[in-house]
Parts: sequence; C-alpha cells; structure tokens
Amino acid sequence: MFSFIRSDLSGLRAYTPHPGGTSGSPVASDIPIDRLDTNECPFDLPKELKEKLAWTYQQLIETNRYPDGSHAELKDAIAQYVNESISPVLTQGEAGESLISPANISLGNGSDELIRSLLIATCLGGEGSILVADPTFSMYGILAKTLGIPVVTVGRKQANFEIDLTAAQKAIKQTSNPPIRVVFVVHPNSPTANALTAAELEWLRSLPEEILVVIDEAYFEFSQTTVVGELQQRPNWVVLRTFSKAFRLAALRMGYAIAHPEIILALEKVRLPYNLPSFTQAAALLAVSHRQVLLGCIPEILTEREKLLDFLKQQPNLQIWHSDSNFIYLRTPTDEALTNLAHQLKHLGTLVRHTGGGIRLTVGSEQENQRSRQHLLAALKTIS
Amino acid sequence: MFSFIRSDLSGLRAYTPHPGGTSGSPVASDIPIDRLDTNECPFDLPKELKEKLAWTYQQLIETNRYPDGSHAELKDAIAQYVNESISPVLTQGEAGESLISPANISLGNGSDELIRSLLIATCLGGEGSILVADPTFSMYGILAKTLGIPVVTVGRKQANFEIDLTAAQKAIKQTSNPPIRVVFVVHPNSPTANALTAAELEWLRSLPEEILVVIDEAYFEFSQTTVVGELQQRPNWVVLRTFSKAFRLAALRMGYAIAHPEIILALEKVRLPYNLPSFTQAAALLAVSHRQVLLGCIPEILTEREKLLDFLKQQPNLQIWHSDSNFIYLRTPTDEALTNLAHQLKHLGTLVRHTGGGIRLTVGSEQENQRSRQHLLAALKTIS
Repeated sequence: MFSFIRSDLSGLRAYTPHPGGTSGSPVASDIPIDRLDTNECPFDLPKELKEKLAWTYQQLIETNRYPDGSHAELKDAIAQYVNESISPVLTQGEAGESLISPANISLGNGSDELIRSLLIATCLGGEGSILVADPTFSMYGILAKTLGIPVVTVGRKQANFEIDLTAAQKAIKQTSNPPIRVVFVVHPNSPTANALTAAELEWLRSLPEEILVVIDEAYFEFSQTTVVGELQQRPNWVVLRTFSKAFRLAALRMGYAIAHPEIILALEKVRLPYNLPSFTQAAALLAVSHRQVLLGCIPEILTEREKLLDFLKQQPNLQIWHSDSNFIYLRTPTDEALTNLAHQLKHLGTLVRHTGGGIRLTVGSEQENQRSRQHLLAALKTIS
Repeated sequence: MFSFIRSDLSGLRAYTPHPGGTSGSPVASDIPIDRLDTNECPFDLPKELKEKLAWTYQQLIETNRYPDGSHAELKDAIAQYVNESISPVLTQGEAGESLISPANISLGNGSDELIRSLLIATCLGGEGSILVADPTFSMYGILAKTLGIPVVTVGRKQANFEIDLTAAQKAIKQTSNPPIRVVFVVHPNSPTANALTAAELEWLRSLPEEILVVIDEAYFEFSQTTVVGELQQRPNWVVLRTFSKAFRLAALRMGYAIAHPEIILALEKVRLPYNLPSFTQAAALLAVSHRQVLLGCIPEILTEREKLLDFLKQQPNLQIWHSDSNFIYLRTPTDEALTNLAHQLKHLGTLVRHTGGGIRLTVGSEQENQRSRQHLLAALKTIS
C-alpha cells in the first residue's frame, strides 16, 4: 500500500452493487432473472414519458454545456410535491404559505451523495460519531467508514424490529470520543420493512438539538408515513427522499433532502457544483410533473405484497413480518437454512438480498411474484 | 449555526457555478449571450448521435433499474482510447500488452468527484495537506476546504506561468503539520493555458513516492500533451481526464482517473456505488466510440484560437500569453481596467471568467469569436 493512502482504508472493501447478481453460484442463462434484490419499482416509465424525455434531450438539452448547478426549477417542483404529502392542515403555515420552500431542499446524486454530504458537514475530522440500529441500510456505515467516522451500532427487538431504545440512549450518553452527532433511521426501515413506531418517534423527539436526526423516507410513497409535517418544530431533523424507488428513476440518480435552511446551506456548500446531469434533472422534473401516473401503480404493488405475505404465512419454516413498504423480510430457523434458501432462489432465477440474518424480497410485478412464490416453494422443500 | 455543523464550514461560501452568467450587471435580454466562460466545446453532439443516444435510452435503458455500478464496458473502451493517446512505442509493454487496462481506470461524476475521492483517500483526518500553484483550477482548493484539508499555495512566474519551483520545493520541505501529501497541477493549466514545462515535469519526477502527484489533463485533446506514457514508471502519479471539454458531454458529467491499480482500488472504495447514471454511461460509450467525429472539430478550434490571438496581439492595452488549449488568458495594466473590461464584455453579451488577476476567454465557434472580437474592441475603447 502506498504511504499516501490512508491506512484505515486498507480494511475496507469496495462496495459491490447487486451482489446477488454477480457473485456466488451461477444462474442458468436460459431462465428469466427477476431482480427482486434492490427494492426498485418493477415498471419502467410509460412509453410516452420515455418518448417525451428523449425528445427533451434531443431538442432542449445542449450536451456540450454544463448543467444548471442551481437546480432552481426542480427544487421548486419538489417543494410543491412535498407540501402535498403533508396533511392538509399542516401544509399551510400561520400566514397561509406552504411549509416547505426551495430553501428547505437540496438535491443529490441519489440519496447516497446527501448521506455523504451530511457526514462531511457534521462529523469529519474527529468531530462526531454516528449511531445506527442494525439491521438497517448499509450505506450510512459504509460511507462513514470511508470518511474515517466512527459508527456506533445498537440492535433491534426481534418481535417488531423496533430499535433497542435503551441501548441507543445509553450509547448516546456513553459515547464521548467523539460524541454521537448524527442518528440515522429509515422510515420504513430497510431491510426489515417496519415504519418508525410511536416509541421510536418519541425518542427521536427527545434527542437534544446538538444531535442531527436523519430520517430516510426512501419508501415514503409506499408507506405514506412521513415526518415532514413536523420539520418546522424540529430544526435538527433532516428528511431524505429518493426518485429511485416509486418514481422509477433508479438509473438516473436523484435524491433530495428536506431540512431547515441552515442545514440545506451546509449541504449546498459541501456538494459538487454540477452534481446532477441535465438529463437527470429533466427526468426528475418530468417524473414529478406526472406523479399521478407514476404513483398510480402503488395500489397494485401493495395488493401484490399482501398476496405474497398470505402465501408466505402458509409456509411452515419461515418467520415473516408485516411490511410497510414494497419489500418483505423473512428468516428461517437456522442461518444454514437461510444461506441455502438464498442460494436456491438465485439458482432458480429470483435474486434476493441476504442481509442482517434474513432475506429481503422485493415485491415485483405480478408475473415476477408468481415466479418468486414458485421458487420459494421449490427451495423450501430442499431445505426443510 | 447549529452546533452539529462543523464550525470551519461557516467561513466557506457555496460555489456558484457560471458566476459570469447570473451575478453582477444584467445583460440585455435581446442580445445573443456567448458562454465563453467555462471552456466547453462550442458544438453539441451531431444530430445523428443525439438521435442514437435518445434511441438507446428508449430501447435499452430501464429507467427504473439501478445503473451498472461496475462500469466495466466503459472502462474497457476508455482504456483503449487512452492507449491510443500514448506514442506508439509506449503503447506496447514488454510482453506486447497495452500499457493501460481497465484496472488502471476509475470513473467519476465529472473529474470533481475524482478530485474529492483522491482527497478523501489521502489527506482526511489531519493526515495531509495539498499543494497548488495559483492561479489554477479552483476546485482543488474548494473541495479540500470542504473536507477540512489544509491548502498550501505557491505562485507562478509572470512571464510564462511556470510554477515557482523554488517556493514549491520549500513548501514541501517546510510544511509538517500535516505534511504535503498531494500536489495538484493542470496540464495545460487553467486559467493560464500553458502546458507543463520541462522544468516542471523534472520537478514532479523528483518528488518522493510518499507524495501523490495529480496531473489534470482536462484539456488533453486540445493540447495533445500527456504524461500517460510515463505512468508505469511513476506509480505515485494520477492522470485525470474529462468528457466535459473536447468530448462535448459537460451536461452529463463524466470524468476518469488513470493510475496504478492500488490507487484505483482506493478510489473505487471511496466512490458512491452508483455514481454514474445509465444515460451518462451510454453517452460516454457513444462518444468514445465516435471519437474521430467528435474530435474532428479540434483543428477548427485551434485555427480560431490563432485568429483570436493575432487579433489580441494588436490591442495596445492587453497582455496576452501563448495558449496550449481552447482558451486564452489576458490581463490589462491595472486591476480596475480588468474589472471594467469583464463588466463591459458581459454587458455586451460575451461571458468570460475573471479570475486570478486576469480574464479567461474560451475559444468558441467562428461566430462567437467574431462577436467576442467586436466586443473586446468596443470594451477596450471605453477603458483605455
């Protein structure tokens, strides 16, 4: 290793996206591969919207010119969408204005860039540690480690995956060198699919203002649970959202943060000036403008989820949980059986995420779910 | 300011892209605006290529699916292009292989992301400072400061903008807390348009292996000067390149680093897993596959540059320099005259970059250059 490379990086491995798809046992090439491992929406944009976007590129985007680094138009459209997602009583401030304005919004190359910017703006240089409750979205810990930021981990209750709040409170009290400066939660959590409970929300509200609370609502459109209406009373809270799930733009990388303007200013200072390609900005603007069409498939996905849950409940060797999102978390009696199950599913063509001692299965299209049920049945026979 | 935000960020301002375009004196809305302030190629992709790219998006890209995070196909194509840019004798290794393979390449959301990743991988947490010679590309210093990394600055000779090598050598010897771990140079330099001199190259070669040398060849396609052929003998050197200039993809954000596989591995560990949208990857692949078409406009731009230089040499109140790239650097006898000149040019519709005590003027299309000459003539009259 060269001496100019930070020595603590040697212990890290490069993150391999889609690990289900490229490593381990090979998949026969003549069977359909269902990518139920990354919680995407199973549908591409409708043909007309793809056409419109292609037209926008050809007619309006100058490929040779730098993109709009201010994101003004897109922030405006997103602010409007976010205001709609708050209950009607809360969308109007005292003077009748909308709660959320473009000054409350920063855009990133996926939520990943915003997570990194939040870490850079707060914890860098020994100023702070972060707290996460495992199992949860792995990127908080991974990005923290690439920045040399310590990660404090607590567990969750097995019954409903509620954070072990006693352990979390204790960790905050006892961590001092450096103290915990940021708490990351997902609402609903990934991979376990549960929304924040009343007790978790109460605990987050009780945290002192010296601690930044990041609430990642990547799956908001599926869960319809949000804390955005509370942001005005909680200046130390940040909500993250993404266009990679329900808005069907995973290929183009767009996430956003909603927070107090001072936090947004810090994010804007830290982000790369031209972080969003013109095509991505055009796509996000199109998607948010056609949100009724795009989000129209959500009832179908939720119906499919319930069918999948009903099926899973009938299987003797599976432990399953309620889901507030577009994926389901399940476990088997032993770790060996779980590894075997993930392996079998992949071999049959259903890619899943094996993580945190369980399997996370994305709800796909009707056809994909039909196949995943068949594959689960077949696989469970071999491991029982 | 919230206490969880790093206190040293308060002194930084958010970078405002295209400062020439949005601040200062307003431009009349009925005149053409020539964007000669960001060194882009003046031409969009040809219509057929835009059509092809739009078709690729509609037919082959699934908007709802995460992009290829391995970048395998694109790295392969870029490695091939880079090998061509080395002189024929050097493209063949001892065993007859190409010098540069995909293991020597990492891709970023513009070079900006790669600069940040290099800083994170080396200097973070008080491990190192960086050295730059002003005036130079501002992003090295800006990104370092957002990461809390100290920036050591030396000057350049006024005659040819060669780095003050005595001062640079002294800075490396005397900076200890933390020591200089990375040296950033642009080849040719921006804003001053000069390629590295023999003395500068000799100095870079003399630096110890504990120091990472970053040579930013953003303008390589215009200058045809490159150190890539030397990389095998210099494991502590990194070359940065971009698709934002000659390849005409500024809107879509694509940059790449060429270096020893161990440095590339560190960059891959640090980068965001899905940093490049699928559309950007498709565009870059298309651009590199059609490089003969795209780079075919370079002789025209260089001819235009010489016309512009001939014109500028005839103006009494201007100091101008030789250019190895697609832009020209000029100064006036006083700072006041310079500010006035930049102001006048903008008012007339020619946007330029006023930086480092001079004006950087991009070589545009024939029409744009005709207008910039007229505007320069008119403006110089008012300030003389």
